[in-house]
Amino acid sequence: MSDFTLFSAELTTTLQQMVDSKTKPLGALGAVEQLAIQVALIQQTTQPDVSKPKAFIFGADHGVCAEGVNPFPQVVTEQMLANFAAGGAAMSVFCRSNDIPLSIVNMGIVNADARWDNVLHHAIAEGTQNFRQGPAMTCEQCNQAVDTGQRLASEAVAQGHNLLIIGEMGIGNTTSASALLSALANISPELTVGPGTGANTEQQALKRSVIAESIKRTIGMSAIDILAELGGFEIAAMVGVLLQAKTLKVPVMVDGFIASVAALVAEKHDSNSKGYWIFAHESAEPAHQLMLNALAVKPLLQLGLRLGEGTGAALAYPIVKAAVAMLNEMATFGEAGISES
Amino acid sequence: MSDFTLFSAELTTTLQQMVDSKTKPLGALGAVEQLAIQVALIQQTTQPDVSKPKAFIFGADHGVCAEGVNPFPQVVTEQMLANFAAGGAAMSVFCRSNDIPLSIVNMGIVNADARWDNVLHHAIAEGTQNFRQGPAMTCEQCNQAVDTGQRLASEAVAQGHNLLIIGEMGIGNTTSASALLSALANISPELTVGPGTGANTEQQALKRSVIAESIKRTIGMSAIDILAELGGFEIAAMVGVLLQAKTLKVPVMVDGFIASVAALVAEKHDSNSKGYWIFAHESAEPAHQLMLNALAVKPLLQLGLRLGEGTGAALAYPIVKAAVAMLNEMATFGEAGISES
Repeated sequence: MSDFTLFSAELTTTLQQMVDSKTKPLGALGAVEQLAIQVALIQQTTQPDVSKPKAFIFGADHGVCAEGVNPFPQVVTEQMLANFAAGGAAMSVFCRSNDIPLSIVNMGIVNADARWDNVLHHAIAEGTQNFRQGPAMTCEQCNQAVDTGQRLASEAVAQGHNLLIIGEMGIGNTTSASALLSALANISPELTVGPGTGANTEQQALKRSVIAESIKRTIGMSAIDILAELGGFEIAAMVGVLLQAKTLKVPVMVDGFIASVAALVAEKHDSNSKGYWIFAHESAEPAHQLMLNALAVKPLLQLGLRLGEGTGAALAYPIVKAAVAMLNEMATFGEAGISES
Repeated sequence: MSDFTLFSAELTTTLQQMVDSKTKPLGALGAVEQLAIQVALIQQTTQPDVSKPKAFIFGADHGVCAEGVNPFPQVVTEQMLANFAAGGAAMSVFCRSNDIPLSIVNMGIVNADARWDNVLHHAIAEGTQNFRQGPAMTCEQCNQAVDTGQRLASEAVAQGHNLLIIGEMGIGNTTSASALLSALANISPELTVGPGTGANTEQQALKRSVIAESIKRTIGMSAIDILAELGGFEIAAMVGVLLQAKTLKVPVMVDGFIASVAALVAEKHDSNSKGYWIFAHESAEPAHQLMLNALAVKPLLQLGLRLGEGTGAALAYPIVKAAVAMLNEMATFGEAGISES
C-alpha cells in the first residue's frame, strides 16, 4: 500500500470508496488503483486530470569528467542536446509516441556558445567544477539551478500542464549521482557505483576512489549544500521541479538513477514532498535499488532500462493516464446494475 | 534475452544491428529493445507497424459454476457483457485511454436471448457443461469456438489491424483455467488453484477437489481434446486468435491467468507459435507464475492486476508502440553525428 498520510484523510477515504465501488473485485487493479488515488490526492480532487503532460530534459556537463571516469567523451552531452533538438533521441521518440510535449533545457554545457532554436538556454556555467578538487557549484549557482527548475515547473502549470516529467542528460552524471547517494544515505561508494552507461571495471574503481575522497568533506552538511558540493546543474534543476510539485499540486514523474537522486536530495530537504512524485521505472543500474530503498518507494515499471533521459517516465505516463481514466470513467456496480458477491 | 530462434536468423541480426546503432549505450533500453525486434520479426520487416491495434474480449459461461466454486453469481457474466457494451468496464476504459478499438464477443452465455447492438454474437451454447460430470464441450463445439477466434483474427487483419489483444470475461473461468494448467503442465491443483476474483478458502478447497477428480480422465489426451474437456468457449476463441498469429504475421498480446492458459493450450498444440505472442502482465494470481514458467516467458508489466479482461495487455500496448517507434524513428550515432565510446 502507498503512503498517503501526507494528504487529507477524508479525501483519501472518499477516493478509496470510489475505487472500491467500480465494477471489479476489490483491489483487482493493484498498483493502478493506488496510482489513481495518489494523483487525485495530489490534485486535491475526485476528478483528476493528467491530459496535458509536459516533459523536461535538463542537460549539463560535469567537471568530474576530468578524472577519466567515463566511457563516453564529454562532448557527447552537447551532441545529445542536438539530438534531442532534432527529435532523434530515445526520449524524443517516446514522448512523441505518447503525445508528451518535451522541453529541452541547457543548464550549462562546456561549449558556452552552443544554441539551438528549440532548446531553452538557462546555462549557469561551462559545466560544473571537478568535485574531487572542491565544490562542484557555488551556493549561488546551485540556488540558481534549483530556481530555474522551480520557475519552469510553475510556468508549465500556468500554461495548463497537469503532470510533469523530469529527465536528464550529462556525461559524468552517474558519478555525481553515486556521490550524492553515498553522501545523503551514508552508503559506501563500493555499493553506489555501478556500470553507469558502460564504465569498465577500472573506471568503476576510479569512480569509487574519487567519491570516497570527496564525500568526506560533506559530513554534517544540509542536503542542498551537499548538492552544491557533488551535484550537477541538471540534477539541481530537477530538484527544483520536484520541490515545486507540492506548491503547484502537480504530480511529477521520476525515472532512473539520476532523476531519483534528485528526488533523494529533494526529500532530504523537504520530507513532505515525496507523495507528489510518481516513481516510474526501476533502473537496471544496481545502485538504483539502494536509492529506492532510501526513498521507500516502488516504481511502476521494471523494463531493464539504464538510459535515463526520462525514458522510463515517458513510457509509464500512459499507465497514469489510464489510472485516472479508471477513476473518472469506470462504472460502479450500482451504475452498471451488477450483482456484488 | 528473448528466444528468436523461430525466426529468420538474418533478419534477427539485421534488427539487432539497427537497435545497436541507435543513440544510446548498447542494450540500454532493456526489454524495449527485445520487444521491438520481436515485433519486427513477427511482421517480417525492418519497419514494423502497430499503429492499428484491435482488442477482443470474449465472454462465456461455465457449467462448472454449478459446483459452487465462485464468489460472484453466474449472471455477472451477462451483466459484465452489458457493462462492456456500455463502455463502463476497466477494459473499456483502458482501451479508450490508449485508442484501442474493442470488439466484444458473446461466445455463449446462459441467457441465450441476450443481445446488444455492439456485441458480436457467436454463441455456441448456453454456457459449457459442468466438466466435473463430463466434457465441458463437444469436439464440434470446441472446434467451432477455435474457428471463431481464428476467423475474427483474420478479419481484423484484413481490415488493416496490425496488433491484436485478447481478453476474457466468464464467471467460473479461473476454475477452468486452473484445471487446464493442471492437466497440460502436470501440476497439482493444490498449486494451480488460487483466490481467482475472490474465492474464499472453502471455495478454493472445493475447486481443488473438482479439478483433481476431472483431470484424471484427460491423461494422454491432445491439447485440443483437453481444452474441450475442461475449457470454456472464450478460452477456445482465444486459442484460435493465438494460433492464427503466425499465419497472419501479427503480434497478439496476452495478459493474465485465463488468457495465458489459452496460450499454454495453443503452445502445446503448435510449439512454433509462441514467438508471435507478447506477454503483457504478470498477474497477482499465484498460479500465474507457474503458467509463465511452463511457457518460459517473462511479461512486460508487474502491476499486481488480477482482473483479466485483457486489462494488462491494454495497459502495455503503449510500450509496444514506443518500442516500434524506437526502431523506426530513433537516430543512429551516424545520423546524429555522435561520438561512440
